[in-house]
Amino acid sequence: MFSKNQASYIRSLHQKKYRQQHSSFLVEGAKSVQEVLQSDFAIELVVATEVFYKENANLTDRQRTPVEIVSAADLTRIGTLDSNNAALAVVKTKENCPLVANPGEIALILDDVRDPGNLGTILRIADWYGVRKILCSDTTADVYNPKVISASKGSFTRVQWWYGDVAGFLREAAGVPGGKMPVYGAFLGGADAHTLPFAPGGYLVMGNESNGIGPEVAPFVTQRVTIPRYGDAESLNVGIATAVLLDNWRRNT
Amino acid sequence: MFSKNQASYIRSLHQKKYRQQHSSFLVEGAKSVQEVLQSDFAIELVVATEVFYKENANLTDRQRTPVEIVSAADLTRIGTLDSNNAALAVVKTKENCPLVANPGEIALILDDVRDPGNLGTILRIADWYGVRKILCSDTTADVYNPKVISASKGSFTRVQWWYGDVAGFLREAAGVPGGKMPVYGAFLGGADAHTLPFAPGGYLVMGNESNGIGPEVAPFVTQRVTIPRYGDAESLNVGIATAVLLDNWRRNT
Repeated sequence: MFSKNQASYIRSLHQKKYRQQHSSFLVEGAKSVQEVLQSDFAIELVVATEVFYKENANLTDRQRTPVEIVSAADLTRIGTLDSNNAALAVVKTKENCPLVANPGEIALILDDVRDPGNLGTILRIADWYGVRKILCSDTTADVYNPKVISASKGSFTRVQWWYGDVAGFLREAAGVPGGKMPVYGAFLGGADAHTLPFAPGGYLVMGNESNGIGPEVAPFVTQRVTIPRYGDAESLNVGIATAVLLDNWRRNT
Repeated sequence: MFSKNQASYIRSLHQKKYRQQHSSFLVEGAKSVQEVLQSDFAIELVVATEVFYKENANLTDRQRTPVEIVSAADLTRIGTLDSNNAALAVVKTKENCPLVANPGEIALILDDVRDPGNLGTILRIADWYGVRKILCSDTTADVYNPKVISASKGSFTRVQWWYGDVAGFLREAAGVPGGKMPVYGAFLGGADAHTLPFAPGGYLVMGNESNGIGPEVAPFVTQRVTIPRYGDAESLNVGIATAVLLDNWRRNT
């Protein structure tokens, strides 16, 4: 029996403060819940409509996941989506483990990317381009924000992230003997992404929506790179720019 | 003196029905209003805070644009933005004139792109890549929707659009003697965008967010094209895919 306490616990997870306190976050909608049930995330609880439960019992039963059956109206009421007639999962957050790009591997660094929709889109793009590691400044949007999870379209299950002092990370990474990896950074006025010979692996730094890469991180960028412009728009959205740069990197290596 | 009637007229323009009835739409925020004042759009009225008016009087005075001075709170109340302490313009829509790509020119065709945020982003991307003509199916989001205008970041002043039967357009365009232009279409399982030799000009068709290019338009696509995938995401957002394909097209011609 789904209780008022469970409902208010789930609603509390709309807020970062309670996600951190409980080390739990929400995954909403049929496809995302199906994907998280097949991932290595630990599932605390699934709240589902009867239809969704019957069609997906193989996924919840295999993991012995506790399931509560509710109406679509109740599901919508406790979640963040405009409507949800399928399911919602309460999932345990992962530990914040350090990430380093291996030789020949591409990793992303996000310096103060604030918009949850942009971060979710970037997870999906990283997943498309086979980028598995994303290092985020502490000021970057919370990856466990329901808007990020939703915009990532399930890609949050296939990408790892770390939050911390990215300038400090780059300072240490740059100083490791034999461990120097190129650090590309998206700037206006950098090298032409169409002709730049990208290294096989390294880091790509993307900056804040309004201000780009900040002054603490900029000194560690070893190669500034720019998407050539053929028209008059002042800039491209950070998600768009991430996709175009990764596309240029992948085709050139 | 700003009247209640003016306020309710402006609020009515949040809805497509009234935008069509009055042939007017809203442009909101400092930068977008500045850009539209410098464009060839006819401006009906500017509603601005005193600070914005004083800083931009050269723009409004030059065009003898009627200006109403209001508080930021009133401005926010009549508009669609979460907050607006600068200005809002009521602007006349343009006539729906036919558009054709000239030889060597790239034009976009949008087949049922429904999300206003995606359409606004696509205007900005088109503007970045120097694409000036966008042909939209009647089912595509309304370009005069305030969310489209806002997401385009001023690029709506530099791009032209036409709404109509895009399958019919392609049928006629394909039949014009000597007027045959290649029609590229974004499909999964098409030619590799990294190696395809793009023609100097032609059309790029982008489809619906969930279903891609529809069965009425698909037969007129002369070359299916796909962005190579290096990871596991099922798809890319239509705005992202438009940017990556235009980037590949521009770099190859």
